[in-house]
Amino acid sequence: MKGRLGIGLIGLGRLGRVYARDLSSRIAETRLVAVSDPFGSLASEVAAEFDVSKHYTDPLAMIDDPAVDAVVIVSPTSTHRDLVIAAASRGKPTFCEKPPALALDEIVEMQKAIAKSGVFFQMGFMRRFDAGYASAKKQIEEGRIGTPLVFKSTSRDPFRPSLEYANPKSSGGMIIDMGIHDFDLARWFMGDVRTVSAIGGTIAYPELATVRDIDNAIVSLTFTSGMLGVVDLSRSGLYGYDIAADILGSQGTLRVGYLRETPVMLLTKNSVAHDTVPYFMERFRDAYTTQLQNFAQNVLHDRTSPITIADGLEALRVGVAATRAQESGVAVSVSGV
Amino acid sequence: MKGRLGIGLIGLGRLGRVYARDLSSRIAETRLVAVSDPFGSLASEVAAEFDVSKHYTDPLAMIDDPAVDAVVIVSPTSTHRDLVIAAASRGKPTFCEKPPALALDEIVEMQKAIAKSGVFFQMGFMRRFDAGYASAKKQIEEGRIGTPLVFKSTSRDPFRPSLEYANPKSSGGMIIDMGIHDFDLARWFMGDVRTVSAIGGTIAYPELATVRDIDNAIVSLTFTSGMLGVVDLSRSGLYGYDIAADILGSQGTLRVGYLRETPVMLLTKNSVAHDTVPYFMERFRDAYTTQLQNFAQNVLHDRTSPITIADGLEALRVGVAATRAQESGVAVSVSGV
Amino acid sequence: MKGRLGIGLIGLGRLGRVYARDLSSRIAETRLVAVSDPFGSLASEVAAEFDVSKHYTDPLAMIDDPAVDAVVIVSPTSTHRDLVIAAASRGKPTFCEKPPALALDEIVEMQKAIAKSGVFFQMGFMRRFDAGYASAKKQIEEGRIGTPLVFKSTSRDPFRPSLEYANPKSSGGMIIDMGIHDFDLARWFMGDVRTVSAIGGTIAYPELATVRDIDNAIVSLTFTSGMLGVVDLSRSGLYGYDIAADILGSQGTLRVGYLRETPVMLLTKNSVAHDTVPYFMERFRDAYTTQLQNFAQNVLHDRTSPITIADGLEALRVGVAATRAQESGVAVSVSGV
Amino acid sequence: MKGRLGIGLIGLGRLGRVYARDLSSRIAETRLVAVSDPFGSLASEVAAEFDVSKHYTDPLAMIDDPAVDAVVIVSPTSTHRDLVIAAASRGKPTFCEKPPALALDEIVEMQKAIAKSGVFFQMGFMRRFDAGYASAKKQIEEGRIGTPLVFKSTSRDPFRPSLEYANPKSSGGMIIDMGIHDFDLARWFMGDVRTVSAIGGTIAYPELATVRDIDNAIVSLTFTSGMLGVVDLSRSGLYGYDIAADILGSQGTLRVGYLRETPVMLLTKNSVAHDTVPYFMERFRDAYTTQLQNFAQNVLHDRTSPITIADGLEALRVGVAATRAQESGVAVSVSGV
Repeated sequence: MKGRLGIGLIGLGRLGRVYARDLSSRIAETRLVAVSDPFGSLASEVAAEFDVSKHYTDPLAMIDDPAVDAVVIVSPTSTHRDLVIAAASRGKPTFCEKPPALALDEIVEMQKAIAKSGVFFQMGFMRRFDAGYASAKKQIEEGRIGTPLVFKSTSRDPFRPSLEYANPKSSGGMIIDMGIHDFDLARWFMGDVRTVSAIGGTIAYPELATVRDIDNAIVSLTFTSGMLGVVDLSRSGLYGYDIAADILGSQGTLRVGYLRETPVMLLTKNSVAHDTVPYFMERFRDAYTTQLQNFAQNVLHDRTSPITIADGLEALRVGVAATRAQESGVAVSVSGV
Repeated sequence: MKGRLGIGLIGLGRLGRVYARDLSSRIAETRLVAVSDPFGSLASEVAAEFDVSKHYTDPLAMIDDPAVDAVVIVSPTSTHRDLVIAAASRGKPTFCEKPPALALDEIVEMQKAIAKSGVFFQMGFMRRFDAGYASAKKQIEEGRIGTPLVFKSTSRDPFRPSLEYANPKSSGGMIIDMGIHDFDLARWFMGDVRTVSAIGGTIAYPELATVRDIDNAIVSLTFTSGMLGVVDLSRSGLYGYDIAADILGSQGTLRVGYLRETPVMLLTKNSVAHDTVPYFMERFRDAYTTQLQNFAQNVLHDRTSPITIADGLEALRVGVAATRAQESGVAVSVSGV
Repeated sequence: MKGRLGIGLIGLGRLGRVYARDLSSRIAETRLVAVSDPFGSLASEVAAEFDVSKHYTDPLAMIDDPAVDAVVIVSPTSTHRDLVIAAASRGKPTFCEKPPALALDEIVEMQKAIAKSGVFFQMGFMRRFDAGYASAKKQIEEGRIGTPLVFKSTSRDPFRPSLEYANPKSSGGMIIDMGIHDFDLARWFMGDVRTVSAIGGTIAYPELATVRDIDNAIVSLTFTSGMLGVVDLSRSGLYGYDIAADILGSQGTLRVGYLRETPVMLLTKNSVAHDTVPYFMERFRDAYTTQLQNFAQNVLHDRTSPITIADGLEALRVGVAATRAQESGVAVSVSGV
Repeated sequence: MKGRLGIGLIGLGRLGRVYARDLSSRIAETRLVAVSDPFGSLASEVAAEFDVSKHYTDPLAMIDDPAVDAVVIVSPTSTHRDLVIAAASRGKPTFCEKPPALALDEIVEMQKAIAKSGVFFQMGFMRRFDAGYASAKKQIEEGRIGTPLVFKSTSRDPFRPSLEYANPKSSGGMIIDMGIHDFDLARWFMGDVRTVSAIGGTIAYPELATVRDIDNAIVSLTFTSGMLGVVDLSRSGLYGYDIAADILGSQGTLRVGYLRETPVMLLTKNSVAHDTVPYFMERFRDAYTTQLQNFAQNVLHDRTSPITIADGLEALRVGVAATRAQESGVAVSVSGV
């Protein structure tokens, strides 16, 4: 394949619009040729904004469009299975946002469809494309910290999501919704997870109990290598969006973190203060773009997918195990999930 | 009581000598009148160095010395019970380094002796006197972060202790040995602990397995208030002595940490580097001094003890529960220990 | 004017290509309709890369093109005068990179042409659009630091430019070449400069003496308000691109700085290290984009230019005065230049 | 000489009391045997507090006391000449706080008396004993940054001194009063200063004009080696006591700074804040102690003085030159002062 990759984009919510901008203008390897959203007016508006020649309300019709070389799926999680299977059956290379689905058996179904068709498929875990996490991975591979022993990760959101969003029926629950990135990083840095245990509670926002979600959790991990991990998750970071990790190695430690938006400090009587990162888009904007560019390059150059549906499956499996562990109070074996 | 408090110091190991210096010269409220150590030559040497008029090999004889107004115990943990009980029976105000003992029933015995005599007793948990932790406590009391929701603490030693030291028979095991300070802070900031779970392993220094100790652990805590906590412990910090904590509150977060010894940075090609804190004495030197001064002031001014034997008992109870949880793989109720 | 602004871009060197990308794809308000460069093959290549329909070797012909609504000039400084005057005479709104020219009388000539035509003109001083400097300006306007008293600014390049580039005949000399941004910021934050004094030398790269340039300088400023300033400049930062400023006010201080590229730290024995910002494009990439977007918005919405040719003239005047002060060893009055 | 050095301390103001504590209890090599202050009640009070056996109102009588092995002078600057000469004539090793005097000819007189008697004499410039500056010096000597090219130093006080204190008749004026430490560091790191130029003004506290002092200044330095320097001084730091320096070298840069008192940060909505260092005693407490200990060790071990009266003379000479340069507006040659 040569030239630019003609992309069909499915889902035009907040992240979808960012992807529309990236695919249409910020990535040299792509051309956004079609967008699809059940809200037709949204689809036509986005198409106009980014000079996209075609817009659809039916994503399957869009996938069928011969101008669409490859598909990017950023629609709600509940739609992923059907869309991924449809794209696979039509042989269209596909990028799909995390999580692949909320039910493990659905993901297995997707996995089979992908395997059967042999189509290129890449999961969206943008943190792997963040300059900080990517550098940490590279430095580990270079042996800078010896053998990784302990993985420690923090994800804190600055505010509560809507009750509708938080509802575990659609979000999978806070441990899966927030932690899936951390679980993917855990696997990326340390290998497979053997067991998880977790504690959690609805301690910051009592109203979340009405949808049976929690707002804070601590998840402990043991890896099949014998190494250890811990992920702490909070929907009540309040001060800002705080994403950080330590990888403690036998020869050194890597610390990834970022808690500052602009390079300015205000110094007043006995105080030095700087701002924080508002939310995920400010923190990972470049990572999202880099990730989509990587997808396009992989397809154009016939490379192997760096993040497979199996990665999505395994990260979710850890999340499901952790959720069960939190609910039951006992450690859960990941392979048994 | 007026003037300076005449102190008898028991135990002249590394920390003991620091205490000798503090008590003899850095604390206006104390006068070091006697030192005791089973190694008589050490006792006489330290006495000479710090102008202390008396030195003993028998601590009980020293406690009986009428010049000794109060006793500071920094001898090995296995000696604490007898010494505390002896001091209590003689009505001498006592400061005792953590942990009070390694067996809970011994501590209960000490507690009874103290209660019976009505003598002043103060446990040594120097982190409470560190400027950072003390400021965090004060800011919480002032309402700066609202209600504390999650306590998260890290303790990392820069190297492995000797196998002899690490042996759980004398150290209590790594979770107790390293974590007792974190467990005390957890209780100080959050209240009593309800349950603990823990994972751990001998992953950095295989030779520790010969004494059946571990070198890394993650301990999860639920508090009786319903709030959450996590403590990660490592004997393989390597880069330096790293002691840090987050207290995540409903209105803000306090972050205590310190990872730099001297105020100088070296900037070379694409690198900005600073040093780290070598070990606990560099990190908590001032806290040790402040703690002893606080003890003297409390005795001189008939104040209530800020850290009681019960605090020592409860912190150890959390440690014992965490050790059992780590060994068994199931959560342990602290009150059941 | 409505819709997107059709831009003709003059100059396709390193920065010119970045502008081509920004104008063609990253700025919603612009459409890059033509590019011009004396190297025709470069012009056609860039046009192809960014889907620009027209390319020229003659910039005047491009300015005449009716599809060109506005002109962006990023060609060598020596060409600015003729191009700005040509654009002004044709009534085309113009953005011109700093400095406007190296001779003050040329700038006066440009200023007259702009005034005569009444055309919109905006100088390029991208630091004003950096999130850090812009936030500092805003916080000063909000009264956060009271009255600004002292302006202190640092600019350090990580390596020596080519001798050809450094030659004062084309660069204006190091004080002007590097300092013009600092002088513009000084005026933006503090008002007009009354006198300057300066010291400097060829102390890092002796070979610069062959073109009679220096590599390090300290420039002191007094403002007409009586306030003080200092700018230190270095071509031998080596560790990275270090751009920082302090604005010391009567009620507080603002500190703008940034010395880190990726959010990752490597912790090894007694060392905590992070990377640095490689060079200006990494530091000010977003500022460049924001600046061009601001230009387009100003033209489209008939706003007043935020940075006029007079700003360019005055910043250069400070630079010329500082250069003379450095050469003569005596303070120089800016208004007398 | 062996055993502890018997010290006679002259001057019991704020710093004098700190020295009394250090000499009596924090420095193993010294014994404080006598104190002197014109206020007899102060002298007797300090003697009682620190168990000093003798106290004087007449410093000359104290110097004559045979128990006094060595003299530490921390009385007002105007008394230094007579006291140093008296101590020299009696052959008593002497430590004298900076500045040696405010008149250069007085210092020359002191210098002659010291040379004639051959007595040990050490100037007090405590920054050289600060862990940060000392480490920077050591790293330079180890070649970590190649050849030092530019010295850049900042000293900011958090508040205005009393008008009485600020009066140049007693303080020497702000440039000398605040800058003498920076000038000493400049010489220590870079060698002798050739010329200075300076700007300054009374821009923060108009009332200082009543005593003809200024409150902010920028001093530029050229060294005899051809290298460059700049010192910015402010009495209106407000946010805290800010002491920092950059030594820019041909292979790297050292940055000394410290702007934080306790290791705790408060994170609230979009803000991360920490405290600042209140004032010089908090910043340089350890340096003061180390400096006096170094003095005692030098005397006890017959070492050469690391900071001579000539260092005091030369630092003051730079200060006087800078003050004249600020007043006259023209560069001043240091050797001509």
